Amino acid sequence: MNVTVIGLGEMGSALASAFLKGGHPTTVWNRTPGRAEALVAAGAEEAASVREAVAAGELVVVNVKGNTVARELLASAGDALAGRSVVNLTDGTSAEVQAVAEWVAGRGAEYLHGQIMTIAPGIGHPDAVVFYGGASAVYERFDAVLGLLSGHKRLVADDPGVPVLYGMAVHDTMWGTLNGFLHAAALLSSEGVEVGRFLDDAGASMKALISFLPSIAEAVDSGEHAVEYGALKHHLPSVEDLVRESRERGVDDAFPGFTRDLVAEAVDRGHADDNYSRLIEHFARR
Amino acid sequence: MNVTVIGLGEMGSALASAFLKGGHPTTVWNRTPGRAEALVAAGAEEAASVREAVAAGELVVVNVKGNTVARELLASAGDALAGRSVVNLTDGTSAEVQAVAEWVAGRGAEYLHGQIMTIAPGIGHPDAVVFYGGASAVYERFDAVLGLLSGHKRLVADDPGVPVLYGMAVHDTMWGTLNGFLHAAALLSSEGVEVGRFLDDAGASMKALISFLPSIAEAVDSGEHAVEYGALKHHLPSVEDLVRESRERGVDDAFPGFTRDLVAEAVDRGHADDNYSRLIEHFARR
Ligand SMILES: NC(=O)c1ccc[n+]([C@@H]2O[C@H](COP(=O)([O-])OP(=O)(O)OC[C@H]3O[C@@H](n4cnc5c(N)ncnc54)[C@H](OP(=O)(O)O)[C@@H]3O)[C@@H](O)[C@H]2O)c1
Ligand SMILES: NC(=O)c1ccc[n+]([C@@H]2O[C@H](COP(=O)([O-])OP(=O)(O)OC[C@H]3O[C@@H](n4cnc5c(N)ncnc54)[C@H](OP(=O)(O)O)[C@@H]3O)[C@@H](O)[C@H]2O)c1
Repeated sequence: MNVTVIGLGEMGSALASAFLKGGHPTTVWNRTPGRAEALVAAGAEEAASVREAVAAGELVVVNVKGNTVARELLASAGDALAGRSVVNLTDGTSAEVQAVAEWVAGRGAEYLHGQIMTIAPGIGHPDAVVFYGGASAVYERFDAVLGLLSGHKRLVADDPGVPVLYGMAVHDTMWGTLNGFLHAAALLSSEGVEVGRFLDDAGASMKALISFLPSIAEAVDSGEHAVEYGALKHHLPSVEDLVRESRERGVDDAFPGFTRDLVAEAVDRGHADDNYSRLIEHFARR
Repeated sequence: MNVTVIGLGEMGSALASAFLKGGHPTTVWNRTPGRAEALVAAGAEEAASVREAVAAGELVVVNVKGNTVARELLASAGDALAGRSVVNLTDGTSAEVQAVAEWVAGRGAEYLHGQIMTIAPGIGHPDAVVFYGGASAVYERFDAVLGLLSGHKRLVADDPGVPVLYGMAVHDTMWGTLNGFLHAAALLSSEGVEVGRFLDDAGASMKALISFLPSIAEAVDSGEHAVEYGALKHHLPSVEDLVRESRERGVDDAFPGFTRDLVAEAVDRGHADDNYSRLIEHFARR
C-alpha cells in the first residue's frame, strides 16, 4: 500500500520511518525540505507539493503543529483529496478535530483521527498506544499498516473527537499524579528522605493507587457515591494532617489545601459517607 | 506473647482481632466499654483501665483518634509503662508522632510508630501495607506478631516520624491522581463517554502513568532536570488544549489551568527543555 506522510517533525519522521520499515512505498512532504533527507536515503519519495504527496498515497497521514495547519495543508491538495483516506494524527481539541473531519468528508475523502500516546522514539514499539476515532470499515481496512505505529491501538468511537478526549483524560490524570507526587517529593526531601528510596519502599502502595480508579469510574457512571469504607469523612483528617505537615515544614500548603477544601465542602453538604467520587460535582461544573 | 490493644474503633478492633486469630493472648481497652464485646466473645480480656491493660501486655498497641489522645491514655498508665514496648498506629503529623515517641522513651518504654496504609477490613491481608519507624532491634523482636497485621511491612527509618511522611506521600499522590481522574471523568461524561469504558480501553496508558515516577524521583534527588524527550515545552501545548477543551465543554478549567500556569512559568524561567520534575521548585516552596 502506498502511504503518504505530511509533516516531518520529530513525530512525523518517526511515523514515516515506521511505514518504510514495514515495507510500504512511502511519499513524504514537509514545509522545510531538508527534513526529508534521512527518509529519502532510507527509500522514501519526497513530493514537491502537498498535492503531489496526496496524489501518491492511498493512505494520507497528517502530523503537523495544530489542526489549523493540518486543514490548510489538506486544502492545498485541491481535488487530489477525493477518494483518499486521511489519518490525521495532529493534536488539538475535540472541536478542532471534528471540524477537520467534517471538512475532509466534504471533499469526498475518508477520515480517521488518531491520538498518539507515546513520544516519537516509542513509535513502532509494542507498548505504544494510539486511540482512533472514525468509521470502523476504514479502521479495519488500514489495520495492518496502522499496526506498524503502535503495539496497542483501538478504535474507541466512530466520533473522531473522542480519541482526543481519551488522550486528554490520560494526560489529565498524569498531571494530577505528577503534581501530587512532586508535592510528596517536596515533603520527603524536606526531611532528607531520598524520593527514589521512598519509591522502592512504597512501590506496592503506589501501584495500588491506579487500582482505585475502576470503583471511582463506576460511581461516576452510576451516580451512586455511597461507600462502606474509605468515605470522605476518613479522607478529611488525613488531608488536614497533610496541610499542617506541609505548613510546618515550609512546603507549599496550597496544593493539599485545594483537596482539603473540596473534601470539607462535600462533607458540609452532607456527603461524609460518600466515596471520593462525589467530588465529580466540583470538577463537572465550570 | 501477650498483646494489648488500646482503642477499639473500626481499626483498633481489626488489629485486636488479627492478634487473637494469630493465637496471642490479647487484652483490650476502649473508652466506651461496649465496643469490646465481640472481641471478648472471641477470647480477648477486657481491662478495666489503661493501666491494667498496659500491665497485661509485653507489646502495647495504641490506635485511637489523634496523638493527643494517644499520649493522654499512655500517661494514665503511670509507671506500668516502664519496660513495655509501645507500637503506636495512630495517625497524625510527623512532629506529633516524634513528640509521643520522645515522651514514651522518657517513661522507660520502647517505641515504634506504624503507618497503616489499608482500611480496617484490609488488616491481616497479604496485600496490606504498614510502614514502621523506630529501632531495628525492637522491630525485629516483634516481626512475627506485627506480620499478622499486614503482608507487606517495612522498617523505613529509625526516626518514628518518617513512616508518617511515607503515608502522606502515598496519599498526596493518590489525591493528585484522583483529582486528575475526576476532572478527566467530567470531560468524558460531558461527551457521554462512560468512564468505565474509557478505563477498559485505556488501561495500558493508565498503568504506564506510575512508571514515569522513578525518573521523576531520580531527577528530584539529583537536581538534574534536563531531559531528551517529553520536556516541559511539549507539555505546554497539550495542557493548553486541555484548558480550552474544558472551557468549551463547560467543565472546570481552574484545575488544568493550575498545571498550565506552572508549566508556562517554568518555561518562561528558561526550563523549556527540562523534565516535568523541574516543577518541584514550585511545590518545595511555601
Ligand atoms: N514529538 C512527540 O513526541 C509527540 C508525541 C505525541 C504527539 N505529538 C504530536 O504530533 C504533532 C507533531 O509534533 P512534533 O513533535 O513532530 O512537532 P515538531 O517536531 O515541532 O514538528 C512540527 C511539524 O509541523 C510542521 N509545521 C508547523 N507549522 C507549519 C505550517 N504553518 N505549515 C506547514 N507545516 C508546518 C513543521 O514543519 P517545518 O519542519 O517546516 O517546521 C513540522 O513538520 C503535534 O500535534 C504533536 O502534539 C508529538
Ligand atoms: N478505619 C480505618 O480504616 C483506618 C485506616 C487507616 C488508619 N486509621 C487510623 O486509625 C486510627 C483509629 O481510626 P478508626 O477509624 O478506628 O477511628 P474510630 O472508629 O472513630 O475510633 C476512634 C477510637 O478512638 C477512641 N477515642 C477517641 N477519642 C478518645 C478519647 N478522648 N479518649 C479515649 N479514646 C478516644 C475511640 O473511643 P470510643 O469508642 O470511646 O469513642 C475509638 O476507640 C486513626 O488514627 C485513623 O486515622 C484508620
